Amino acid sequence: MTVKIGVIGTGAIGREHVFRLSRKIPGAQVVALNDVNISSCESINSDFDLDAKIFTDSHELIKSDSVDAIVVASWGPTHEEFVNSAISAGKFVFCEKPLAVTAEGCRQIIDAELTGGKRLVQVGFMRRYDQAYQQLKKCLQDNTIGHPIILNCAHRAPHAPGFGGDMAITDSLVHEFDVLRWLLDDDYVAAQVILPRKTSLCDEGLQDPHIVQLRTRQGIHISIESFVNAHYGYDIQCQVVGEKGVAALPEPASVQLRELGKLSHEILIDWKDRFVAAFDQEFRDWIQSIKAGKANGPSAWDGYVVAVTADACVKAKHSGQFENIDLPPRPDFYQ
Amino acid sequence: MTVKIGVIGTGAIGREHVFRLSRKIPGAQVVALNDVNISSCESINSDFDLDAKIFTDSHELIKSDSVDAIVVASWGPTHEEFVNSAISAGKFVFCEKPLAVTAEGCRQIIDAELTGGKRLVQVGFMRRYDQAYQQLKKCLQDNTIGHPIILNCAHRAPHAPGFGGDMAITDSLVHEFDVLRWLLDDDYVAAQVILPRKTSLCDEGLQDPHIVQLRTRQGIHISIESFVNAHYGYDIQCQVVGEKGVAALPEPASVQLRELGKLSHEILIDWKDRFVAAFDQEFRDWIQSIKAGKANGPSAWDGYVVAVTADACVKAKHSGQFENIDLPPRPDFYQ
Amino acid sequence: MTVKIGVIGTGAIGREHVFRLSRKIPGAQVVALNDVNISSCESINSDFDLDAKIFTDSHELIKSDSVDAIVVASWGPTHEEFVNSAISAGKFVFCEKPLAVTAEGCRQIIDAELTGGKRLVQVGFMRRYDQAYQQLKKCLQDNTIGHPIILNCAHRAPHAPGFGGDMAITDSLVHEFDVLRWLLDDDYVAAQVILPRKTSLCDEGLQDPHIVQLRTRQGIHISIESFVNAHYGYDIQCQVVGEKGVAALPEPASVQLRELGKLSHEILIDWKDRFVAAFDQEFRDWIQSIKAGKANGPSAWDGYVVAVTADACVKAKHSGQFENIDLPPRPDFYQ
Amino acid sequence: MTVKIGVIGTGAIGREHVFRLSRKIPGAQVVALNDVNISSCESINSDFDLDAKIFTDSHELIKSDSVDAIVVASWGPTHEEFVNSAISAGKFVFCEKPLAVTAEGCRQIIDAELTGGKRLVQVGFMRRYDQAYQQLKKCLQDNTIGHPIILNCAHRAPHAPGFGGDMAITDSLVHEFDVLRWLLDDDYVAAQVILPRKTSLCDEGLQDPHIVQLRTRQGIHISIESFVNAHYGYDIQCQVVGEKGVAALPEPASVQLRELGKLSHEILIDWKDRFVAAFDQEFRDWIQSIKAGKANGPSAWDGYVVAVTADACVKAKHSGQFENIDLPPRPDFYQ
Repeated sequence: MTVKIGVIGTGAIGREHVFRLSRKIPGAQVVALNDVNISSCESINSDFDLDAKIFTDSHELIKSDSVDAIVVASWGPTHEEFVNSAISAGKFVFCEKPLAVTAEGCRQIIDAELTGGKRLVQVGFMRRYDQAYQQLKKCLQDNTIGHPIILNCAHRAPHAPGFGGDMAITDSLVHEFDVLRWLLDDDYVAAQVILPRKTSLCDEGLQDPHIVQLRTRQGIHISIESFVNAHYGYDIQCQVVGEKGVAALPEPASVQLRELGKLSHEILIDWKDRFVAAFDQEFRDWIQSIKAGKANGPSAWDGYVVAVTADACVKAKHSGQFENIDLPPRPDFYQ
Repeated sequence: MTVKIGVIGTGAIGREHVFRLSRKIPGAQVVALNDVNISSCESINSDFDLDAKIFTDSHELIKSDSVDAIVVASWGPTHEEFVNSAISAGKFVFCEKPLAVTAEGCRQIIDAELTGGKRLVQVGFMRRYDQAYQQLKKCLQDNTIGHPIILNCAHRAPHAPGFGGDMAITDSLVHEFDVLRWLLDDDYVAAQVILPRKTSLCDEGLQDPHIVQLRTRQGIHISIESFVNAHYGYDIQCQVVGEKGVAALPEPASVQLRELGKLSHEILIDWKDRFVAAFDQEFRDWIQSIKAGKANGPSAWDGYVVAVTADACVKAKHSGQFENIDLPPRPDFYQ
Repeated sequence: MTVKIGVIGTGAIGREHVFRLSRKIPGAQVVALNDVNISSCESINSDFDLDAKIFTDSHELIKSDSVDAIVVASWGPTHEEFVNSAISAGKFVFCEKPLAVTAEGCRQIIDAELTGGKRLVQVGFMRRYDQAYQQLKKCLQDNTIGHPIILNCAHRAPHAPGFGGDMAITDSLVHEFDVLRWLLDDDYVAAQVILPRKTSLCDEGLQDPHIVQLRTRQGIHISIESFVNAHYGYDIQCQVVGEKGVAALPEPASVQLRELGKLSHEILIDWKDRFVAAFDQEFRDWIQSIKAGKANGPSAWDGYVVAVTADACVKAKHSGQFENIDLPPRPDFYQ
Repeated sequence: MTVKIGVIGTGAIGREHVFRLSRKIPGAQVVALNDVNISSCESINSDFDLDAKIFTDSHELIKSDSVDAIVVASWGPTHEEFVNSAISAGKFVFCEKPLAVTAEGCRQIIDAELTGGKRLVQVGFMRRYDQAYQQLKKCLQDNTIGHPIILNCAHRAPHAPGFGGDMAITDSLVHEFDVLRWLLDDDYVAAQVILPRKTSLCDEGLQDPHIVQLRTRQGIHISIESFVNAHYGYDIQCQVVGEKGVAALPEPASVQLRELGKLSHEILIDWKDRFVAAFDQEFRDWIQSIKAGKANGPSAWDGYVVAVTADACVKAKHSGQFENIDLPPRPDFYQ
């Protein structure tokens, strides 16, 4: 059985997902494309030697009988509408983050899914599929370092021109918000944001870096540095201090070099190089879950929790205080 | 287009390749199985939910119209016969090492391929597909450390009960023989084998470790330690000393741990965990090359060179001297 | 010229300093000893083959014509009195931390020194003499990572039975308070203390770990974890995030080991092993400064700043808020 | 008691030793200097604020009643004469390597010492005093990796203009010859020298690198790379493969840096920075041994063994064969 996929949004990330589904994932076939820019669909068909039907109307694609499942990779504010449409059509849908641009939008998707009675939505939190995070989670599950107490994390990128306002929180740290609660199997109860002196090496007026501090239900203290103009590379750090040891996210494997008075390893520059294998695994699992008829990746609930957390962080950033993160109980449906 | 594969030999490695081709490689389908032990074919069909035809005769499988390409993963001494049969049938064939148990056997396969006029054979030297080796090769190609002068390599495994005679050379170091000449784009001209004191922590009477030293056409000195009862782990090392720097094979990524007075990283124990991704890539490339109608992996010539090198090493081991490695010129066909 | 030293307090640390001054530091001679426990002085004379005069009265030792300079290594609450006495006698005095148990006591020592018109006091903040911290400072001075923005520090010890109340701050973090402002050439303006969930692996009722967060005049954010029952080792971490790079305190050099499935380096267990060379260098410099007639180590002012910082941290720990750190202007005398 | 030292040879290394003995080693005083270049003695007196007597005749210095012990740091070919003279005078003598330029010369020094009946000679093999080598030796003594089987060593320096002929062996590898037999508590029985392709980045006509391979009495295989124009830094490597693990010489501690797409540690460039602490410890121990009246450092026997080893390596280099290393039994006097 081959799962026939329709992709909405064929910009950079959408294009990559089409390539991935066509060339690297057995059991999937991209049969339909849609984008506000039709020519990008055409070039995909031509570049990847596909024969996907190009839809001018996203909802037509979603409803089409030739489409089994949907990938939503369009502009963020459109996600909510397309996900709801897919749920109405009773089709599995993979949605890049954000699930919706407001927590309320996420909440309504949850309600729609609950009403439909079947989990259909997977949110594109690919870090859970990254081998490095999986090794770290295994280390915690094996109790190698005892119960976690403190997490020191960093998300650093070389440059992010125009990355202003609250984007550090709403656009980038959302990945940390998802993967850390998955890692700890815990939820957040409060957030604080500290703004240290700004780097001078970025667009004027931009606040960079930020430090987000979260407290979990279990009392674990999490510190996440977001530094998107860090210059030296794309560097994801996560260190867990436990009761009897400390575990850190594996660094990507690279040649050990002795040259020019340095013993060195390469640090990635381009974020796209960091999670290639995670994206592959994410889609491999998604296709398997569709074949099995049962979604098992990051759910609409996970998308909602991240949205609520981001809201609290934005509020904390502006208040300078600890702000509570209040979540309703998780429906059994999402256990 | 889907490449229809027949697999000869469904023991441990054959079974893994069937799984790989069925679940991880788009564009391939395992349609035929053959083994001296028919029940192993049956259990594969059942375990992996396949419907492959089971042949009792290897040559029937090779000739079958329903089979596009062959994987030979049977007992080593049978490889030569099946590869020759596949060449006669004009089909692409992937053959696990050794290509043949004698250099002469390899030579005859080359002759058959030359006569047929088309490269059909790929030998299972998967290390070329390993990301770590590829990163190291890229580093050399980028001239980061200048021209290579010395290679210090090690192949260490925790235990190898019954691994006696010349098996360290003929069964295990053959992978190094292939990958190092690929890495350096060079050939060997002489070999010496040094036998240090034996470890006491292995089967009595066994010589372990060995040190094989090779000299290349360019005058590069290569030292390869084979230590198959090294206890502590499965550890592949390769360090290249160049004119202006030193580069070492990446260690597999793993959690950095601080516990019990140690700052540590895990070392693999099971060799099967080391090259999983390389095997996947090897087959992904093989399928692509079949679709493109043009073999591009390790060739029958590469299999032959390794066989000649192994012969010289075995001779050197027994003589205690440097022994020459004499190769005929490489046919243009294999450039 | 040999500097004749009188040592007050010959417990564990005093005894070590006598050994150091006698055996490892050229140009110094321990000529006088004093302790509440006279027998500890006697055993030092005998164990180290010295002939130091034993004083039953600390002030007699300080005033003695045979003594050029004083080392105060007695019980913390006695430091203030002995330092003041040494200033009155016009003698150089090395005082283990704390300079005084209250900020006010430190302030009075400063006043006495100012009145005397000569810097005589050095406080035992030995981390400034540690090669690792000096390498890190050099790296910052060389502008290798650009202007510092964030510091992530940790002070972890395996066990600290009975280390309760505010001791984590007043007894242990004082070393961080001193060395970090020296490292950054900056001062603190505010402190916050975060109390994560307690470790279960320590004395009941004890709060461990603590996280102290400081903000400097330049807006640098500092996070210091104090975890004195961290089990796995004695581990001092200091990572500086700068505008274009990140620098971390060197780990102590140790054998790289491959054994039992681990690639590992030893982590120290005993804190005394960590700063041996720093203590040596501290006293070597102190003796040189006495010969040169001019104190140049950590001053009474530095001792005072640390005391004020510790007070603010204790207050912040109990309030759960950011607390200001208010310092008077530094007298020119201490520039 | 202060040991009064006379120093013969006040070039680069002699000058450093005078500084060391004057400023860093308690219990020593440099009271006499001699050099073919008198002005270098004068500048030492002036630069280090010493008042040492300057001798124009080395033998007068050795015999002088004001001199307790001798440091020989003059031109290599003169060592033998001065050491013999010191033995005749019954004085402790520290001699930089080589003890004598021929094995026969070393042998005669041994005979003289045996005749005198007291160990007086210490040879300047400072690596035994290096903390890194001491940690590695401790690791072997603790049996952490089981019995050693293979040693992979490298001595790499950035540049060595004019370092031709057999100097790589006689001038530089002698340090490895000494420290490795000390490390293993073993002796060499055979040597082979392999000459790989020459680096193009050095003086024309020079052979660089060399690989010296030694076999010990216990059957341990040792490979030592000497690469004195390695460009990238001064880098001493020593890896011991044991029956159940692998231990490597600690890398010098240095700041871990993330900048410009690299995670790096500094590699030393200047060899003088590598062994500063080892030289200090060497002389500290030497002074202690003199006070105790009993030499305990590297002996005349050790100097002799190294000379015999170097001779065999030079022979092997020219023959291309394994050459035997024949030593007489070690006299009990040197146990």
